[in-house]
Amino acid sequence: MAKQKKAPRPKAETPKGFRDYFGAEVTERDEMLRKIAGVYNRYGFDALESSAVETVEALGKFLPDVERPNAGVFAWQEDGEGEKPGDWLALRYDLTAPLARVYAQHRNELPMPYRRFAMGPVWRNEKPGPGRYRQFYQCDADTVGAASVAADAEICSMLSDTLEEVGIARGDYLVRVNNRKVLNGVLETMGLSDEAGADRDAVLRTIDKFDKVGEAGVRELLTTGRLDASGAFIDGVGLSAAQADPVVAFLTSKAGDAAGTLANLRAAVSGSAIGVQGVDELELIAELVAAQGYGPDRIEIDPSVVRGLGYYTGPVFEAELTFEIFDEKGRKRQFGSVAGGGRYDDLVKRFTGQEVPATGVSIGVDRLLAALREKGRLVSAVRGPVVVTVMDRDRMGDYQAMVAELRNAGIRAEVYLGNPKNFGNQLKYADKRQSPVAVIEGGDEKARGIIQIKDLILGAQIAETATLEEWKDRPSQFEVARGDLVAKVREILEGQS
Amino acid sequence: MAKQKKAPRPKAETPKGFRDYFGAEVTERDEMLRKIAGVYNRYGFDALESSAVETVEALGKFLPDVERPNAGVFAWQEDGEGEKPGDWLALRYDLTAPLARVYAQHRNELPMPYRRFAMGPVWRNEKPGPGRYRQFYQCDADTVGAASVAADAEICSMLSDTLEEVGIARGDYLVRVNNRKVLNGVLETMGLSDEAGADRDAVLRTIDKFDKVGEAGVRELLTTGRLDASGAFIDGVGLSAAQADPVVAFLTSKAGDAAGTLANLRAAVSGSAIGVQGVDELELIAELVAAQGYGPDRIEIDPSVVRGLGYYTGPVFEAELTFEIFDEKGRKRQFGSVAGGGRYDDLVKRFTGQEVPATGVSIGVDRLLAALREKGRLVSAVRGPVVVTVMDRDRMGDYQAMVAELRNAGIRAEVYLGNPKNFGNQLKYADKRQSPVAVIEGGDEKARGIIQIKDLILGAQIAETATLEEWKDRPSQFEVARGDLVAKVREILEGQS
Repeated sequence: MAKQKKAPRPKAETPKGFRDYFGAEVTERDEMLRKIAGVYNRYGFDALESSAVETVEALGKFLPDVERPNAGVFAWQEDGEGEKPGDWLALRYDLTAPLARVYAQHRNELPMPYRRFAMGPVWRNEKPGPGRYRQFYQCDADTVGAASVAADAEICSMLSDTLEEVGIARGDYLVRVNNRKVLNGVLETMGLSDEAGADRDAVLRTIDKFDKVGEAGVRELLTTGRLDASGAFIDGVGLSAAQADPVVAFLTSKAGDAAGTLANLRAAVSGSAIGVQGVDELELIAELVAAQGYGPDRIEIDPSVVRGLGYYTGPVFEAELTFEIFDEKGRKRQFGSVAGGGRYDDLVKRFTGQEVPATGVSIGVDRLLAALREKGRLVSAVRGPVVVTVMDRDRMGDYQAMVAELRNAGIRAEVYLGNPKNFGNQLKYADKRQSPVAVIEGGDEKARGIIQIKDLILGAQIAETATLEEWKDRPSQFEVARGDLVAKVREILEGQS
Repeated sequence: MAKQKKAPRPKAETPKGFRDYFGAEVTERDEMLRKIAGVYNRYGFDALESSAVETVEALGKFLPDVERPNAGVFAWQEDGEGEKPGDWLALRYDLTAPLARVYAQHRNELPMPYRRFAMGPVWRNEKPGPGRYRQFYQCDADTVGAASVAADAEICSMLSDTLEEVGIARGDYLVRVNNRKVLNGVLETMGLSDEAGADRDAVLRTIDKFDKVGEAGVRELLTTGRLDASGAFIDGVGLSAAQADPVVAFLTSKAGDAAGTLANLRAAVSGSAIGVQGVDELELIAELVAAQGYGPDRIEIDPSVVRGLGYYTGPVFEAELTFEIFDEKGRKRQFGSVAGGGRYDDLVKRFTGQEVPATGVSIGVDRLLAALREKGRLVSAVRGPVVVTVMDRDRMGDYQAMVAELRNAGIRAEVYLGNPKNFGNQLKYADKRQSPVAVIEGGDEKARGIIQIKDLILGAQIAETATLEEWKDRPSQFEVARGDLVAKVREILEGQS
């Protein structure tokens, strides 16, 4: 028998592009998602948790000839049975493709229209980069089967409520609404209707850059081309300056109020039926949200919203945080978008052949968490535990009784479970746990019926800043009767918060 | 160019062995997990959410020569770079293997001991069966780096608190504790120490069947063999009746109280150092939980707990629900186990070579949910929304204003977003949504400044059971002033709950 080779030790590493979340990172996100779910629920949306694994077929990726299906997903092939090859399965890459599958599969049992929300991880098989992970959270709400723009208006007001619920103050955000149909109308008046193909696509792609290059940049790109910041020359679409006018007029048609903006848009699409319909829809959305009490300080018509105009078929919305932050280079800039969505009408057509209207929104969970952190709104519900130290390892029962009392009073508490020999290690442990309070009961204290309670937060402050006088005036360690354990700890915790 | 073949429509189906969760199924589980997280947090455990994807290497599955690694997991190979083949990745199959990887990877930053809890889906590439899914939830708590059985005692009291917190009444459950070391002691007294190999393994495997075959069955299996219920003969281990005695004595050593049980165990392991150590540990656990106020009505020493004795290295615990249910065949039986765990000391050794003690528990999320459903304790926080019907599609703004008022008062409400032409469809929709109340405002009502509010729950009851007299006495539809919308809806909802 060949000598067995000893297997090398495995590497303890997350796969590239994946990460772990610890403590507050988990609970803060859970807390935020729970608040969002509360708002969605109030709007009549039902929770849906679809399987993380879908058939590649249902996800809408098509198998190429090669072994590996679409490179953008994590996919594998099931074992086959006899001659029959196994299905290709994949991790979901978003929450919309699974919604389409779920709706097609269960449409006979689901209410119509179907309002659903979904929260959970999605996976992308992409090259990871700094801050770019291959597993991340999405949080979506969609209404399937409602053709009325009342459904879109509702998504907008829900988005506004959601942002305020999680802690973004009114005035610090804006839900901006545009409509693909208005753009279609503009293109129609330019002679670039659906059939115009390449030119139309080039114009759509150019519009998508409005966010970055602004009005002058879009004008250059639509006509003769543009020298970008890196010095590269980007070819233009080749329109004349006059031909580019309507597009620029559309993008910059925002006026001081909704009425003004709508009038500008009406002028820009005159003669196009689809364009007029788009403006009518925007007008109705503005009316409906106003009827619910949402003014332009929360939701506004803004034709400069271009993100997703190429993908969506009707109203498009984006939630933007308007306060300023400093970017990594120290420059001030607006925080920017944290959610986006719109109307798309081919949700389940792939499965059933039937066109089903749908509209929805997706919140960027990590970006919104970052915004809340920026604003100091992530007051974690979790604080470090009270640590009961172990002075005498034979009296573990006494220490366990103390933590039980504290927990029964609703106070987070633990007994030190490491080797108790070195007391310094116990205090270092309490420090690592960000413990607010330590409890000490040695043999001497036990005999006297008392315990020592250390206020670790105050202790740290004093150690850092206090003068000797202050230090004397503000003791951070208290000797109290054993029976006063819970009362004294509670008093200290209340003083800290 | 060859004519392109039209792709057939994809099937709208979850992959075999996977499922979707709708509405209350999601929120009830979330609510239960949130309560559990609250208890874990109070005990000083920190949340950990590790990546769903691990390297096959880290998971502890070894690549065979063939293409596909271990068949028990869902695995795939990353694209390689140049000559270097890509890593094999896999979905985690439990929450313990990732804990080992996380602890080994981050041990320098983590507190020591490290108490962590984790909740989330895990995936098993197994043949699906009725009620057996390939994706399901686990909910674990573990303490890494604490050798003291105080850590085990703490897990037991935490498990007790957890069950009561989610709604299992005291008296309806029992946390039972055993210890692998005691069994080792028994085997040692029989001459079956670690080196005895095959015989010892056979005895361990037999003990694992004690739950199913009982004392007489174990005795048969340890000696000459047993005819099982299906008529098949199972070979015995081949011990003599006298040799089997100590094992049976161990399994049946439970007495009327902990002192009695411990005395029986001490007799069973006399002369074995490891056995005596095991009994001492059980005694200490009993003392520690008693010091915290947990009596034998909640936590008890029970040597008949055998599940996992083969896997764990020290204390073993199991939470059993003691109330009776009817099984699928109409027979009464105890609900049984909903959680189990124990001490295992080789958690991170694979990665670091260093032995790190660990102890923990895993709650069977689906089984515990089933138990709560059985006990009627899953009072879902989610009820159907108030449905504001659409009588006049041009006045959508009026209806949106109503739902906004209701939501601002914290009441779940939605406007009907389907085609409003057929009013019957709107009521059918409200029915499907399990809506408690419908609101109606036609042109006539609008002119008179009133609205109609229908109590749908009462309406359904009346339709089912009431006599004409009762029907007259208990109207289920009310005409109220438009301004009283919120007050009246709230009154009806309060009457229903």
